[in-house]
Amino acid sequence: MHAEDKQRWKLTIAYDGQPYEGWQSQPSGNTVQDHLERALIQMNGMPPGIRVHGSGRTDAGVHAEGQVAHLDAPSSLSLTEASWPPALNARLPPSIRVLKSEAVSTSFHARFSVVEKTYVYKVFLGNILPPMLAGRYAQVPGFLDLQALSRAARLLEGRHDFRSFAAERGSRSHPPRSTVRTLREISITHPAGNEVYMRFTADGFLYRMVRMLVGTMIKFAQGRLSEDELKKLIEGPPGLKTSACAPAAGLYLTEVRYGKEFQSA
Amino acid sequence: MHAEDKQRWKLTIAYDGQPYEGWQSQPSGNTVQDHLERALIQMNGMPPGIRVHGSGRTDAGVHAEGQVAHLDAPSSLSLTEASWPPALNARLPPSIRVLKSEAVSTSFHARFSVVEKTYVYKVFLGNILPPMLAGRYAQVPGFLDLQALSRAARLLEGRHDFRSFAAERGSRSHPPRSTVRTLREISITHPAGNEVYMRFTADGFLYRMVRMLVGTMIKFAQGRLSEDELKKLIEGPPGLKTSACAPAAGLYLTEVRYGKEFQSA
Repeated sequence: MHAEDKQRWKLTIAYDGQPYEGWQSQPSGNTVQDHLERALIQMNGMPPGIRVHGSGRTDAGVHAEGQVAHLDAPSSLSLTEASWPPALNARLPPSIRVLKSEAVSTSFHARFSVVEKTYVYKVFLGNILPPMLAGRYAQVPGFLDLQALSRAARLLEGRHDFRSFAAERGSRSHPPRSTVRTLREISITHPAGNEVYMRFTADGFLYRMVRMLVGTMIKFAQGRLSEDELKKLIEGPPGLKTSACAPAAGLYLTEVRYGKEFQSA
Repeated sequence: MHAEDKQRWKLTIAYDGQPYEGWQSQPSGNTVQDHLERALIQMNGMPPGIRVHGSGRTDAGVHAEGQVAHLDAPSSLSLTEASWPPALNARLPPSIRVLKSEAVSTSFHARFSVVEKTYVYKVFLGNILPPMLAGRYAQVPGFLDLQALSRAARLLEGRHDFRSFAAERGSRSHPPRSTVRTLREISITHPAGNEVYMRFTADGFLYRMVRMLVGTMIKFAQGRLSEDELKKLIEGPPGLKTSACAPAAGLYLTEVRYGKEFQSA
């Protein structure tokens, strides 16, 4: 398609990650991206092989309340912002919903235009995880010092080299890039008796970074990691890695923010 | 077993109804009762063929936060109230949890000793059902008059013959009994912007009664059923039936209450 023949659309998407092998297309076809692309192809007049480009991957079992993706559709289809969610949702499983669609310029890219992302990690404190929270919360039975959790948050916030909190990806298709990120805020809230939410906002996250941060913070709040050990992970020698990685079940990609230039009129 | 060789236990159980064909044992083996009985048999020293007796059936897809059941276990096993939940939960899927266990006298019967039950029905108002609510809320898009919903509640509360709000069971194993019930309270709450909870407390419920009440109340609150028609269903001629039955997904058995004589010490 020539630029003048197509319209770029930004989609905001929510999903329950439990049934899927993550966001990114896989040979199995059972990823969120695969389901979206199959739903698109079923729309009248959509060209075969149409691709959606996500803001980033989410792992198997990770949820989203505000994942963002873009796609280019032929202008001839005369789609509107309001027509996208019902058209796609009618062709998607109930565990994937398109919440919103916006017409954007072709300079917008769901991944490369990201300014900031927010993830929330949900923890259930207690011995019996209610059935409705299974697969949606990480269970931490026993003692957890919430003040220590906040102290760890204060130490981790800011601009750091987060290489100790990054897993290696299986694929080596990308050259090694900087592991410095700015973690603008970690907020800890306590919405209900047995629940703790940990909210992370940064200009970018390394692979598995939130889960490794959460795992490490929980170890610290359980008294199984000292403040010195935590500081060493943040500022310490190359090659040091945290051994903790919290389960996928508690993780939600809640918001992806872009520059003002991409806000729809 | 002789009475003196056994101890009766009352269990409080929560489950996500989505994966199961309801509470009551079925040839498929995929019911909550079947899973509980299989978990019991796996416990050391438990006699084969041990049965649990529920407070009543829940249909496929209906959830529970406080289902109650009883069972008789050999006294020789020296089980305690605290030992039951971890022993069973370790052998159950995460979507079924035993919350509590209490030693009770053999005069307690999970079904015949019931004094009152409470069900909550959860409704989502809006065009896009969030993925995390799929299978857990009934979606009602478009207009719903919440004041009319409360007016319907006031009409339905009290002692009535609820035969217009009862489905026929497939099996005819039970002789026809009275269809008069006392609906002590219907409360309507609005916990979040798009959510409505309808809570029903009665001395007993007929088959599918809550779902037929909810379906009828929603029709009334959408302006598709007049107050006269509603009153006719409550007081009207035999043979009249509501045509509305709300989906199983929104229904939760939240509490089963028994007389003071069965409260554990």
